[in-house]
Amino acid sequence: MQNVSIKELYRNKEQYMDQKVSISGWIRTLRDSKSFGFIELNDGTFFKNLQVVFDDALCNFKEIAKLPISSSLTIEGTVVATPQAKQPFEIKAVSIVVEGLSHSDFPLQKKRHTFEYLRTIAHLRPRSNAFSAVFRVRSVAAYAIHKFFNEKGFVYTHTPLITGSDCEGAGEMFKVTTLDLHNIPKNDDSSINYKEDFFEKESNLTVSGQLNAECFALAFKNVYTFGPTFRAENSNTARHAAEFWMIEPEISFADLKDDMQLAEDMLRYVIKYVMDECPEEIEFFNSFIDKGLKERLNHVVSSEFGKVSYTEAVELLKKADKEFEYAVEWGCDLQTEHERYLTEEIFKKPVFVTDYPKDIKAFYMRLNEDGKTVAAMDCLVPGIGEIIGGSQREERLDVLEQRIEELGLNKEDYWWYLELRKYGGTKHAGFGLGFERLIMYITGMSNIRDVIPFPRTTGNFEF
Amino acid sequence: MQNVSIKELYRNKEQYMDQKVSISGWIRTLRDSKSFGFIELNDGTFFKNLQVVFDDALCNFKEIAKLPISSSLTIEGTVVATPQAKQPFEIKAVSIVVEGLSHSDFPLQKKRHTFEYLRTIAHLRPRSNAFSAVFRVRSVAAYAIHKFFNEKGFVYTHTPLITGSDCEGAGEMFKVTTLDLHNIPKNDDSSINYKEDFFEKESNLTVSGQLNAECFALAFKNVYTFGPTFRAENSNTARHAAEFWMIEPEISFADLKDDMQLAEDMLRYVIKYVMDECPEEIEFFNSFIDKGLKERLNHVVSSEFGKVSYTEAVELLKKADKEFEYAVEWGCDLQTEHERYLTEEIFKKPVFVTDYPKDIKAFYMRLNEDGKTVAAMDCLVPGIGEIIGGSQREERLDVLEQRIEELGLNKEDYWWYLELRKYGGTKHAGFGLGFERLIMYITGMSNIRDVIPFPRTTGNFEF
Repeated sequence: MQNVSIKELYRNKEQYMDQKVSISGWIRTLRDSKSFGFIELNDGTFFKNLQVVFDDALCNFKEIAKLPISSSLTIEGTVVATPQAKQPFEIKAVSIVVEGLSHSDFPLQKKRHTFEYLRTIAHLRPRSNAFSAVFRVRSVAAYAIHKFFNEKGFVYTHTPLITGSDCEGAGEMFKVTTLDLHNIPKNDDSSINYKEDFFEKESNLTVSGQLNAECFALAFKNVYTFGPTFRAENSNTARHAAEFWMIEPEISFADLKDDMQLAEDMLRYVIKYVMDECPEEIEFFNSFIDKGLKERLNHVVSSEFGKVSYTEAVELLKKADKEFEYAVEWGCDLQTEHERYLTEEIFKKPVFVTDYPKDIKAFYMRLNEDGKTVAAMDCLVPGIGEIIGGSQREERLDVLEQRIEELGLNKEDYWWYLELRKYGGTKHAGFGLGFERLIMYITGMSNIRDVIPFPRTTGNFEF
Repeated sequence: MQNVSIKELYRNKEQYMDQKVSISGWIRTLRDSKSFGFIELNDGTFFKNLQVVFDDALCNFKEIAKLPISSSLTIEGTVVATPQAKQPFEIKAVSIVVEGLSHSDFPLQKKRHTFEYLRTIAHLRPRSNAFSAVFRVRSVAAYAIHKFFNEKGFVYTHTPLITGSDCEGAGEMFKVTTLDLHNIPKNDDSSINYKEDFFEKESNLTVSGQLNAECFALAFKNVYTFGPTFRAENSNTARHAAEFWMIEPEISFADLKDDMQLAEDMLRYVIKYVMDECPEEIEFFNSFIDKGLKERLNHVVSSEFGKVSYTEAVELLKKADKEFEYAVEWGCDLQTEHERYLTEEIFKKPVFVTDYPKDIKAFYMRLNEDGKTVAAMDCLVPGIGEIIGGSQREERLDVLEQRIEELGLNKEDYWWYLELRKYGGTKHAGFGLGFERLIMYITGMSNIRDVIPFPRTTGNFEF
């Protein structure tokens, strides 16, 4: 007999009606009376449960009727239409095999738990409605990203995680080492003897694959990365994690306008894909997590993103009828409060802020004609703030070398990056999308810890 | 005018014939005479070059005729059929814009370079035929993996990279820290004061996402990971890297037989997908890298994998008419020479070796009825040896606890892993596929350094 998933049953119910099937999953709820009972079974493939009816014709009726929730079962039975009931069909069980007993102290009982509590049982929380939905959406969104870039002919590139270079020229990094921390080998001048370390040099976990991705973009035209990145920043906020996934496309023969178009097309594609593939999950988030979610997502899919230069944005914020914690002046970095005001109050939709002052942006961003700003863009979305940061890259070797010197960086460390400009460089651009922030945006979940399977934050990496 | 990729032109040439198009790419070769010239242009989207003809009607004819190779261009012109020539069509250029000049000392001149030399210019090697092909195949194979699991309804799960647990109970790991290595904080008893470290505990880079993936398999039924893993082993071989990508599916309500079927289906699917999508690349590898490649891949796609128990395999190896460097005895781990002999000489195709002695395998593998072996499987392929390692997992709480004790591991470290067995555990299984070894197998490339964009090996992480 065919063992089918609950998703398959729901999606193609006509073809299974009155058929015998085999289903495996976990008990979400169980009600019984003397001679029959109902099981709500979930197998994680679908948001909804499957209703199973069983009666005392089963040889193990008494055992089944007393099972603790979360016990795992394999059920054989017939699919029966239930036109009068809430659910479209149910299974009349012919046999129920207990695959694994649960215990009565299973921590996810029917009552509602706080997300804080559920983080302490990250190994079990995917069996709850909310996290089951979040992590299915995360998976579907990841696939949508690969599908989007694949359809456009981009080459998926795995950039390295252990690195000697510091892409941003800033940002706290984790050190990676095989040295014995009890007994760090030293040179005569008491500096650390890295010759004894695995890579024979100081090494770190990367904060971005961009510089490596640029090498590949200048060979394959259009590439993207999708992999983990790290920040050792001690910022205990709802939007920061020490380990998170990032998507970084890099496109050649392309400028900042092309870059923004790609970002907009990608966001719209992924959101639409998730809405099409996960309507039950989106409905749930809209009802229980974020009442305005569906309206906002529909709006994003159907309307153009806003565009405003940094200089204009600063003017708008200065004129705003709102007390900010941090004052806004031309030259300062925008805070989350400013970003959210722009996207939530002024534009009421996603907005690109472009052409930031060069002094608050990275060395590799292309200097504009005014000599003061760079061809950078940040994409801000309601509820989150910055979700994407990108720029046109400086392709002029002399300008780039000058910027590296101005910032006191070591030119020798960037020899290969500079050579990209020497041997047939071309205008090119790219951006980074924080994958977790995208999932927060699509689900309405407000803490990054709740969209990562096993989050890593300051002082926290249980599991 | 439409800017199209060279792949698009080749794949849909009929629709572009006699049309004007715009193409951007890099010069691979350039020949000129007094009044006309030929450019072989490559844009990285396709294995083959595009032939461009230009003549002195171009206002910048003299400039173009003298361009160094690897200069980047945007060309407008008409697609013209060339039925007499090797290539099916060419572009008659109407205008050529130089996007970026290259220099005459571009290191990838037409002569053949050794792969060793090309590793020293990892930022430029994707512009060579071989590496352009390798990294396109790598991208296509990665997509095939996502597509395969997506079609089967698996949930893609991002397991953490920074971890406190050591999945294998063995294996050298990289330490991750934010402590000042010049001045490691110590406790009174001179142990390291990890309270001052980022995670307030000793932390490492993961060697496998399996234990975390099991948590998700016991909620979503079928899941897979596809992400980086790390080994700090000082093994300077052609098959080992310190950082590599691994695919780890984990399936519930499934045993070792289901696990092997999944592995076989997956390998066959990915190989077939790459052969269908990249025929030009496979042709190239077959001609220049590994003469038997196509035959071998076709054989894998069309024939069943072999199966042999470890105990039988040891008997076969003992009887073999071959001097091994390491003698074979029941109880010892198989060496690469043994693995390759089994798959290359005895079976002449991929083969699963099953049911290894428990003492040479990890604690989480399911103990067989004989009490001596575990339900493990390794998949061996010709030319490589082990490409997949998997097992049915021990789902019996008491047996698992006993194994953890036997091996001297700390039960408290595995509290959440053990709880999976307490709350509705079920038989389940999984495996790990080394992605780089798969790419070596599909391309015939013999060194792992040549299938990773920027490889990390002992003492080596330039770029």
